[in-house]
Amino acid sequence: MSKPVLVLGAGGHATVLIDILRQLDKTILGVVARDKPEAKTVFEGIPCYESDDAVLGFDKEQIYLVNAIGSMPGNSLRKKIQQHFRQHGYRFLTVVSPKAMVSEFARLEEGAQVIHGAIVNAHSLIGEGTIVNSGAIIEHDCMIGRYNHIAPGAVLCGGVVSGNNVHIGTGASVIQSTLIGENVMVGAGSTVVSDLSDNSKHYVAKPFIC
Amino acid sequence: MSKPVLVLGAGGHATVLIDILRQLDKTILGVVARDKPEAKTVFEGIPCYESDDAVLGFDKEQIYLVNAIGSMPGNSLRKKIQQHFRQHGYRFLTVVSPKAMVSEFARLEEGAQVIHGAIVNAHSLIGEGTIVNSGAIIEHDCMIGRYNHIAPGAVLCGGVVSGNNVHIGTGASVIQSTLIGENVMVGAGSTVVSDLSDNSKHYVAKPFIC
Amino acid sequence: MSKPVLVLGAGGHATVLIDILRQLDKTILGVVARDKPEAKTVFEGIPCYESDDAVLGFDKEQIYLVNAIGSMPGNSLRKKIQQHFRQHGYRFLTVVSPKAMVSEFARLEEGAQVIHGAIVNAHSLIGEGTIVNSGAIIEHDCMIGRYNHIAPGAVLCGGVVSGNNVHIGTGASVIQSTLIGENVMVGAGSTVVSDLSDNSKHYVAKPFIC
Repeated sequence: MSKPVLVLGAGGHATVLIDILRQLDKTILGVVARDKPEAKTVFEGIPCYESDDAVLGFDKEQIYLVNAIGSMPGNSLRKKIQQHFRQHGYRFLTVVSPKAMVSEFARLEEGAQVIHGAIVNAHSLIGEGTIVNSGAIIEHDCMIGRYNHIAPGAVLCGGVVSGNNVHIGTGASVIQSTLIGENVMVGAGSTVVSDLSDNSKHYVAKPFIC
Repeated sequence: MSKPVLVLGAGGHATVLIDILRQLDKTILGVVARDKPEAKTVFEGIPCYESDDAVLGFDKEQIYLVNAIGSMPGNSLRKKIQQHFRQHGYRFLTVVSPKAMVSEFARLEEGAQVIHGAIVNAHSLIGEGTIVNSGAIIEHDCMIGRYNHIAPGAVLCGGVVSGNNVHIGTGASVIQSTLIGENVMVGAGSTVVSDLSDNSKHYVAKPFIC
Repeated sequence: MSKPVLVLGAGGHATVLIDILRQLDKTILGVVARDKPEAKTVFEGIPCYESDDAVLGFDKEQIYLVNAIGSMPGNSLRKKIQQHFRQHGYRFLTVVSPKAMVSEFARLEEGAQVIHGAIVNAHSLIGEGTIVNSGAIIEHDCMIGRYNHIAPGAVLCGGVVSGNNVHIGTGASVIQSTLIGENVMVGAGSTVVSDLSDNSKHYVAKPFIC
């Protein structure tokens, strides 16, 4: 795990990941982003490459890639990029914040990311490329699919199973043993109390504004 | 607190507690469960006893029991088991995750359990056998009754008082100084902004699914 | 930062702050409160002054003040007190719990307070006198105004911008890049998915009680 890393993406999720990588004392070889990143202190001293092809200039045996492309419902760029470079033989670093709480009896697939204050309890599995974002909670015995985004503060109780490409919005809650199909979108703040079929969308009730 | 422990129950909540007990370097004498537990790595090397009577074979002065039976609304097994073995003179370990944040000015009654990432602030009291589950927040000056389950990610503001056998569902929020009667069930994700009388149930508004 | 501190207020928020100040090994010169504080162990050994004028008896160069007045919607006492003593030349301590997670790439203005388990991610700004309460999450690139109260367990996604005097209630969720005007009140448990204009109020949908 001591190989240097190359970070793909330079948006908001990248700033959080680079912050973590710095805390983990990783050597950051560069940031790859089509658009020049904003002038932020977290990027200071890190070379920027403006073409994805720059990745291929690095020996795939000597580095890890970090997928720092954010995950938004309906946008599969994060997944495509990871699968693209996997086909070229590159490996993706699994990133766990030193301030996350991941059970030693949980399992994280390649390129999963667990951000500050997030919890992954015993005998849960986090799929390839999935983000468990800041302060999100994955209770025991969950099986979370690939390329999910469990957004900040979302809570999944014990035994939840999700398909691939699922989005659980910020502050959403999912009760125990719920099955969530592929490509499901659970809106921010909503509460899931029964199974959700593939491709369904689940939103919070309308608020009262005055 | 250095006595070895015997764990009652082998379901999901047990896996989380054993994970904590291992982090606390507790000696685990065994798991007591009527049904043989699933083959999970967290149980490896721990003897399994299939009858509650096995407990009585251990000297009550030499061990602590850990109540690892999960808490579900309308199911009082957790409470009954604890009261049963208390009558036989056994004591229950109060379990605090090393990753929980409990104020030294808070007080936990016997057998209370505070799981990873949970917060209990100054001058709050957590009643006997109550679970403050992963990432739940108990603000200052709360008085939480006995055998409550404050589910993962639930938030109780300052000065909340709850009766016995209360369930506050996953991701639920309770505003400050609310009184919650005995046996109240607050559904997952719901928001409590006024007092709730004994035995009442409080659910989140209906979501919008498409 | 090693100057001793004088704490203004002796209610529930004060107990949480004093708990933190003790963990930070701060010397607490006293608590200033018009009403004698309740007899709580967290106050033990701390002198109590019953008049705001007592503050002026301390050399403004030699101490920091801690604003321990709680923040409630529609009550501006917390702000008035801080501005009053700022005009007299006193400085307010910025308080960060040792159990909070604040990015070194975030910035906290004078007198901001980040409580246990709260998260402030990279390139966010927390305004003067604002409270990020227990377990609240401020994602990357947020700009939080002055004298906001981000209540316990509230979650603000990346790029949220708030005006001054905003209240985000307990367990509320705000999606990414939302603009929240001045004096806005977001009720406990509600979900904000679009911009809110100045002085507006946003409440959770009515629950179902039985």
